[in-house]
Amino acid sequence: MNQYPDLNTSPRILLGPGPSMVHPRVLRAMAHPLVGHLDPQFVQLMTEVQELLRYVFETENKITFPVSGTGSAGMDAAVCNFVEPGMPVLACVNGYFGGRLCEMASRYGADLTRLDRAWGTVFEPKEIDDALKSKPAKLVMIVMAETSTGALQPLEEIAKIVHNHGALLLVDCVTSLGGMPVKIDETGIDIAYSGTQKCLGVPPGLAPLTVNGRAVEALHVRKTPVPSWYFDITAVEHYWGPERTYHHTAPISMNYALREGLRMVQEEGLEARFKRHHENAELFWNGLKDLGLEPVVEIAYRLPSLTTIKVPEGVDAAQVCSRLLNEYNIEIAGGLGAFKGKIWRVGLMGYSSSRENVVLLLAALDRILNH
Amino acid sequence: MNQYPDLNTSPRILLGPGPSMVHPRVLRAMAHPLVGHLDPQFVQLMTEVQELLRYVFETENKITFPVSGTGSAGMDAAVCNFVEPGMPVLACVNGYFGGRLCEMASRYGADLTRLDRAWGTVFEPKEIDDALKSKPAKLVMIVMAETSTGALQPLEEIAKIVHNHGALLLVDCVTSLGGMPVKIDETGIDIAYSGTQKCLGVPPGLAPLTVNGRAVEALHVRKTPVPSWYFDITAVEHYWGPERTYHHTAPISMNYALREGLRMVQEEGLEARFKRHHENAELFWNGLKDLGLEPVVEIAYRLPSLTTIKVPEGVDAAQVCSRLLNEYNIEIAGGLGAFKGKIWRVGLMGYSSSRENVVLLLAALDRILNH
Repeated sequence: MNQYPDLNTSPRILLGPGPSMVHPRVLRAMAHPLVGHLDPQFVQLMTEVQELLRYVFETENKITFPVSGTGSAGMDAAVCNFVEPGMPVLACVNGYFGGRLCEMASRYGADLTRLDRAWGTVFEPKEIDDALKSKPAKLVMIVMAETSTGALQPLEEIAKIVHNHGALLLVDCVTSLGGMPVKIDETGIDIAYSGTQKCLGVPPGLAPLTVNGRAVEALHVRKTPVPSWYFDITAVEHYWGPERTYHHTAPISMNYALREGLRMVQEEGLEARFKRHHENAELFWNGLKDLGLEPVVEIAYRLPSLTTIKVPEGVDAAQVCSRLLNEYNIEIAGGLGAFKGKIWRVGLMGYSSSRENVVLLLAALDRILNH
Repeated sequence: MNQYPDLNTSPRILLGPGPSMVHPRVLRAMAHPLVGHLDPQFVQLMTEVQELLRYVFETENKITFPVSGTGSAGMDAAVCNFVEPGMPVLACVNGYFGGRLCEMASRYGADLTRLDRAWGTVFEPKEIDDALKSKPAKLVMIVMAETSTGALQPLEEIAKIVHNHGALLLVDCVTSLGGMPVKIDETGIDIAYSGTQKCLGVPPGLAPLTVNGRAVEALHVRKTPVPSWYFDITAVEHYWGPERTYHHTAPISMNYALREGLRMVQEEGLEARFKRHHENAELFWNGLKDLGLEPVVEIAYRLPSLTTIKVPEGVDAAQVCSRLLNEYNIEIAGGLGAFKGKIWRVGLMGYSSSRENVVLLLAALDRILNH
């Protein structure tokens, strides 16, 4: 059998759609020796993680905790708890991850209406209103920050419309949480999930989830049990609630990392953090203009955390990614699905969102494209 | 809002049912800077993790990879892939985790037959044969190492019987993998899952899973899609297969840790590792005799990784656990479910399984119980 060398991966400059770079403080927290998942010290840490998650989600929701899986596990948990067989669900799809929400809801038996819109654009409130008038739904699913397109979906008006129709609003906050305001309570988002490896600057492996009272009521009147035992919020909430009843063994080290990452969010302050993300994104957008490169999304709806760029004609998108990785140690990504080969995706998220990273990437792109 | 201090949990001596202690080499791997989940360096690491998992599972199964969640996620993944609504399933229950398998299979609509046996005992092959004769099943679920009782279930005969009846055998290897032979191929186990935080000595957060050709065939003739998108093996296998198609973002740091933990298993060698687990368990069992304490499980079926001990009359089980934690910094655990308050559970798993830990625990127990 093979012998394997010491772990020796390169310390990459991660400017793709995630994972983003992880601050040394968070890496150090990962290396901290373990305590048990029911140890009083871990129980205290769980409380702190929950308080800090409420801070970054901008919510008072009691049920706020990290699902023990990656961002996609958070999506699956959100969908399987709030969809029942035959339930009318409206899915708003303007990118890859909206499509994934449909895939998940269909598997759990939703009576799905799919509202499609061109990738890179965002939904108008009226479209949602019309869709709900023509076919009522109990749940509306939408992506706030589409990682496949770089578009930021405004949600204030949509939340009001969804509630006027008596439905719940489920929002994907994977690429927004920690990098821009998500304002769960002020906006009236009923169910939201995210991932740790984007704007929170923590390794992938946990999925922050928050659920308000309206959504909990819906959970408690389900006619069928939640299909997945692992993701069942009504069971997990007793572990993450005051009673701390054993459900499954929490990923201890990942929670150490999440606590440290969230502590750094708190130290920086939400406003300063959002400002940093925005300023670095603007610096990058201005640099793109100088390079003659064009973003996919118009500026009003452009994500500060993830910029999508049209690949100029005659340029091999994948080759540019390879050269950035091999010659400059920088990771960016190409497009998914409909955008494959047509766009690049550049993430400036969490610890990766820095002036030096922006300037370096622009310089490297310039050398690859123009020299 | 609260300010939070630096992470400062105690470096506990973890001798409970998991998580076990993590070797500094594995902790250091966790702190290694991240690469992307589609980076060629990570793709190489995935191959290595798979090879090493095959080594410890003692299998040639192509589909062998870590599910991106804890051990319970592995259980949920195994069940949701191989159970369909209305499918006749036989569940062998002689402890808490057998019960959890039933709970999961019921949620996915299994036509469940539950074969119960006293906690702390193991199933005879004939019982399974009789059960399958009286009601045929397509899937038989059983726990190899019952973490709630400390019993080790022999599987060779049972596997033959299950196959004679044309069924698949699904086995919980959470507390066995890495601490005793699991011999997936030789025994003929069709589906097996485990957790990283027991005998592998890696933090909780991944669930090694292996599935043989017979099981894959069953997957490919399912009439309904796997309910959970996140756990769907037919999709995840393309990410963990040669094409490495994006499915979800793998937990990078946890995979670093798993690779290092498995590398240490390989360096020690399976035989030497199993011998160490057995010798330390025997040392502990002999010490218990001197203390007048009695194991729950008879020696022929006693797990080397997890010993259950009857709480003597008049002794407060929870108080002894608290005193061990508060006065000696040692974690052990009490009983679950039917065994609550009646037993203690002591894990000697992975890096925790050492002569010094055994001697220390015996001395501390002596001081608490007899002084």
